[in-house]
Amino acid sequence: MTADRNQYLLDESDVPTHWYNILADLDVPTEGVRKARPAPNAPTAAADRQAPNLPLSMYRDSVGGRRHVEIPDEVRRQYQRWRPTPLVRAHALERALDTPAHIYYKYEGANAAGSHKLNSALAQAYYYKKAGVQELTTGTGAGQWGTALSMACQAIGLGCTVFMVRCSFEQKPYRRVLMELNGARVIPSPSGTTEAGRALLAASPDSEGSLAIANAEAIEHARSVPGGRFAVGSGENHVLLHQTVIGEEALRQMEMAGEFPDVVIASMGAGSNFAGLAFPFYREKLRTGAATRLVAVEPEACPKMTRGRYAWDYNDYSGTTPMTKMYTLGHTYVAPGVHAGGLRYHGAAPLVSLLHRHGRMEAVAVGQNAAFAAGALFARTENLVPAPESAHAVRGVIDEALRAREERRSTVILCNISGHGMLDLSAYDQYLAGTLKDHTATDEQIAASLAALPDTEPAGAAS
Amino acid sequence: MTADRNQYLLDESDVPTHWYNILADLDVPTEGVRKARPAPNAPTAAADRQAPNLPLSMYRDSVGGRRHVEIPDEVRRQYQRWRPTPLVRAHALERALDTPAHIYYKYEGANAAGSHKLNSALAQAYYYKKAGVQELTTGTGAGQWGTALSMACQAIGLGCTVFMVRCSFEQKPYRRVLMELNGARVIPSPSGTTEAGRALLAASPDSEGSLAIANAEAIEHARSVPGGRFAVGSGENHVLLHQTVIGEEALRQMEMAGEFPDVVIASMGAGSNFAGLAFPFYREKLRTGAATRLVAVEPEACPKMTRGRYAWDYNDYSGTTPMTKMYTLGHTYVAPGVHAGGLRYHGAAPLVSLLHRHGRMEAVAVGQNAAFAAGALFARTENLVPAPESAHAVRGVIDEALRAREERRSTVILCNISGHGMLDLSAYDQYLAGTLKDHTATDEQIAASLAALPDTEPAGAAS
Repeated sequence: MTADRNQYLLDESDVPTHWYNILADLDVPTEGVRKARPAPNAPTAAADRQAPNLPLSMYRDSVGGRRHVEIPDEVRRQYQRWRPTPLVRAHALERALDTPAHIYYKYEGANAAGSHKLNSALAQAYYYKKAGVQELTTGTGAGQWGTALSMACQAIGLGCTVFMVRCSFEQKPYRRVLMELNGARVIPSPSGTTEAGRALLAASPDSEGSLAIANAEAIEHARSVPGGRFAVGSGENHVLLHQTVIGEEALRQMEMAGEFPDVVIASMGAGSNFAGLAFPFYREKLRTGAATRLVAVEPEACPKMTRGRYAWDYNDYSGTTPMTKMYTLGHTYVAPGVHAGGLRYHGAAPLVSLLHRHGRMEAVAVGQNAAFAAGALFARTENLVPAPESAHAVRGVIDEALRAREERRSTVILCNISGHGMLDLSAYDQYLAGTLKDHTATDEQIAASLAALPDTEPAGAAS
Repeated sequence: MTADRNQYLLDESDVPTHWYNILADLDVPTEGVRKARPAPNAPTAAADRQAPNLPLSMYRDSVGGRRHVEIPDEVRRQYQRWRPTPLVRAHALERALDTPAHIYYKYEGANAAGSHKLNSALAQAYYYKKAGVQELTTGTGAGQWGTALSMACQAIGLGCTVFMVRCSFEQKPYRRVLMELNGARVIPSPSGTTEAGRALLAASPDSEGSLAIANAEAIEHARSVPGGRFAVGSGENHVLLHQTVIGEEALRQMEMAGEFPDVVIASMGAGSNFAGLAFPFYREKLRTGAATRLVAVEPEACPKMTRGRYAWDYNDYSGTTPMTKMYTLGHTYVAPGVHAGGLRYHGAAPLVSLLHRHGRMEAVAVGQNAAFAAGALFARTENLVPAPESAHAVRGVIDEALRAREERRSTVILCNISGHGMLDLSAYDQYLAGTLKDHTATDEQIAASLAALPDTEPAGAAS
């Protein structure tokens, strides 16, 4: 046994019994995260159809004040099939960087869905099933959320239909096959099975689809099948709540390592993998007064936290969903096609946005090649290929570690490797070949989509 | 904590300190596995060039009588980066089969190489480096061994060149990218960089290549670079020795589970994942008198154990390597293109062949669709997609479990999931689409390749 351990493993009996609800510990106004606003222009009937259809118990726990929300037995038993996930000390990466920093990573990719998304997919499948739902439906681009949802539905006993953006369906069949292996029906979108799809196909028969269309089809489909519901994989309070198992485990594992992080880093899509790791550390920070920094890393192609606005906005391109208060580039912002589909969402989760608004966390934006360079170094040293999304977190880690080397100070860094990149190797191939492009949002692009924000800010609520 | 645990995890301090050398416990004549024979027709110069070039210490340990071979510190430290691997109780698969059997699987796919191959790749890289070698070279088809070797060379500090069958290089780029991420030079074969490759290209410029050609190029390349060596991933005694970490861990984990297997099952390519799991259980069986059966599952397309002959034969198609005594279909046997590249070798490892020859183990052959059906059920229930090779083991497991159900008896089954199938999903796609073909070797095919066996059997040694 050496003091320089590699892995900090917990037993399955150590899978957390509770999720952590950060709302209980927020000392700032929280109306913006407790209630969505109806779309102002939606006709009443449409507004009704858009009304939250979450299972009540799941919804209540995610907006209430209970600090610790008990994980239902069945969900916890499902978690125990692969959790607790390992915490690993990145010795080889530290050596390669010649840094005094201690780098730890929590690895969430070691399940067949390949990412942290399974944590919430299983919980949602459980609550929806308990509420009498028979089938869950979603839209998916690259497919991490769709894959997780199909596995969860298979495990809990629900039907599952996934509308997959047609160009991904055709060009990246691996995640489709994974979903089909798990019994899901995968439909290329636009499809002839929904009004939305048919309308689009009539106008443009060769459409390759988009996530916005896939989601529109999924919502329509969910409404059309008895006991159908549309399920989402990030952004919402309940999703962030479910993901806190990551941070709860990491807290115990850092204790095993005898260290507490000076900085906690995760990539930023809508915020579920960031919140999952960081929120429990936020609680611990409050309790002990530790100066730990929480850092979200977003792509320069979709810089909502660093260059967006804190405002009420829609969750979808067409502006039909209820609005939430969040950092956003505007719901009409279309991120360039970086190979990190999970980070291309125009907004940040309301809870994460609130933390950022009140200076309780930081955000940085990194370029695509910088992220892949970090991912490639991580693969070479730690022998694990991070998902392109997770490679953004690794970029943040490396930059912190290099700064520590320059300033000759020790620091303890903890990051979330939210998924593996085994199905994203073609993007790494482009990086190695030098053909990967950097995409930075222009000021004009951002100004244009921010100008399209709905103007619903009540006077005095802007601060 | 429940009695029905899912995972049996060990700490990194529990990584075995020794490999197990089965030669110490074999009570049968072992000449055939201690020494290869030179190719009878090879000219002296060629025979010299073919002489074993293994590092002496590695070679000695693999043919000597020491029962426990110490794992060098550096290799054990590398193992500790992902080992011990989990032992998992397949509760969901048991439920789906409605069987009284208890099914356990050892999962070797949770490293970036994606398979057990890394166990030997790291050990070989260590011994070769210690012997002054600077670069390891190999040929690869689908690429599991090449991937493992590139990672090991990266970790230990050796150069690595992999000749990859051209059609795989072009059609299955993911493992190539993995190798390149690990700093390996990957050359499509046939290539213009070797005499063998140039000769083939001159005759057939559009050749898609084959593993035999890739290996021939790798051997030539290894000889041409200073400090170069050709490294192999299965079959040889030393490879089987390195893989016994799998079984040593599994022994302890089965003890944690409070059970001892009635049957140990693994897929059969050349034999390294079978031997790795089964050999330590063979020792334990001898010690306790347990009636545990050891079962190797091979594809019907390449049935060397069930329909081959126990004879001296070459390891390569062209018949230039030294000969070993093994179950073989004849070195000229070309297995049909089943999606389990790792199981298409014409022969079985001498050590495994010896056990089989003396009735100490069993072998069964299964069809391709039967194997994929098993793999798909495993994916659906255990949420882990097994490599096509491992799916053969799962087929064996399911058949045992169904027999136990029929006969209403409880039984404890342990199997090796040697790798994941995330880079083999196109084959699962074909299975789901119903377009996967079954390939069974015909009697004529086998008779033809057996007729080409070198006639070197000394009188009286055939039994």
